[in-house]
Amino acid sequence: MNRGRPLEFDPDTALEAAMQLFWSRGFEATSLQDLLDSMGIARSSFYQAFGSKQEVFLQAVERYRDYLVGELRASMESADSGLAFIEGTLKSVAEDTKCADGRRGCLVFNSAAEFGQKDPEVAGRVAASIDAFTRVFTDAVRRAQEEGDVAPERDPKLLGRHVVCTMSGLRTLAKAGARRKELVAIAELAMQSLG
Amino acid sequence: MNRGRPLEFDPDTALEAAMQLFWSRGFEATSLQDLLDSMGIARSSFYQAFGSKQEVFLQAVERYRDYLVGELRASMESADSGLAFIEGTLKSVAEDTKCADGRRGCLVFNSAAEFGQKDPEVAGRVAASIDAFTRVFTDAVRRAQEEGDVAPERDPKLLGRHVVCTMSGLRTLAKAGARRKELVAIAELAMQSLG
Repeated sequence: MNRGRPLEFDPDTALEAAMQLFWSRGFEATSLQDLLDSMGIARSSFYQAFGSKQEVFLQAVERYRDYLVGELRASMESADSGLAFIEGTLKSVAEDTKCADGRRGCLVFNSAAEFGQKDPEVAGRVAASIDAFTRVFTDAVRRAQEEGDVAPERDPKLLGRHVVCTMSGLRTLAKAGARRKELVAIAELAMQSLG
Repeated sequence: MNRGRPLEFDPDTALEAAMQLFWSRGFEATSLQDLLDSMGIARSSFYQAFGSKQEVFLQAVERYRDYLVGELRASMESADSGLAFIEGTLKSVAEDTKCADGRRGCLVFNSAAEFGQKDPEVAGRVAASIDAFTRVFTDAVRRAQEEGDVAPERDPKLLGRHVVCTMSGLRTLAKAGARRKELVAIAELAMQSLG
């Protein structure tokens, strides 16, 4: 049964394009026209499929979070150890400075900085994303404890939060133009808090 | 000699108002009309005195930096030790979560997150501000070394950068809604990297 006219675009491709744009520019600096252009859809289809700029932004943040958590979990699985995964992830921020695109940071941290607690829906989505990142690093710390690299009496949740805090700080310094070498040194210093 | 009509407003008061607004909302989310309203000046006076929204933003970032560096230096002078100053400053982010206003973060870190390297003038002003913050914390580490609290062979610049990175991460987590207790625990953990 055909329930109305089919969508003339692939929602997944359109949402990916919106995510990339919000990631590069932030919410406010992205105009509706920019969104329509990059998503390749007409205004009417946009409203029919997504409702509003705010709604597509919320979906973009979720998409980004799911993507990043998936990448992090896969990277942890293939890493030699829990600590190697954490160190590699922190240092990847430093490597990102080599390309202009790397300087766009993390969509979730960027959204935290842009919105703060101004909008309850965005704030909820951002907090849930940061919790999801924290869970990944908490699991990595637990693995490091099993591997004998982190003392068993230490609080894995606190150490996980500390890694997320360091990651966020490194992202901001990278956006501010810090050099690769400086960021690597800070990442190495932060690793000493775990060992 | 009267060289033209005098300004009908106090530029210092007007710039302070602009700084407060950019600090709360960011650059993009602040409209020119919002600026004029909060600065209490007419559009023509605004252009005559500041030239553009971008120019008043650059001046606001400088004002914020000078204000904050002054506060930090005064706080360091009155602190019992270099380490006590650093710990107090990191923990002050956690205390800021108690008021809604505290969640607006730091204008310099917010601007780094919002602009990245998109605008060379803003990027230059943000990088110079972060360098100024780093110098304060580097001096605090040097003082801690003189006081015997930090080993003399450690690199004060690197430790200073590490404090700035932690401060930035804490600010972002605070904006994302992290609880006071969590931020205090992260700050205490970061302090262990220095001792």
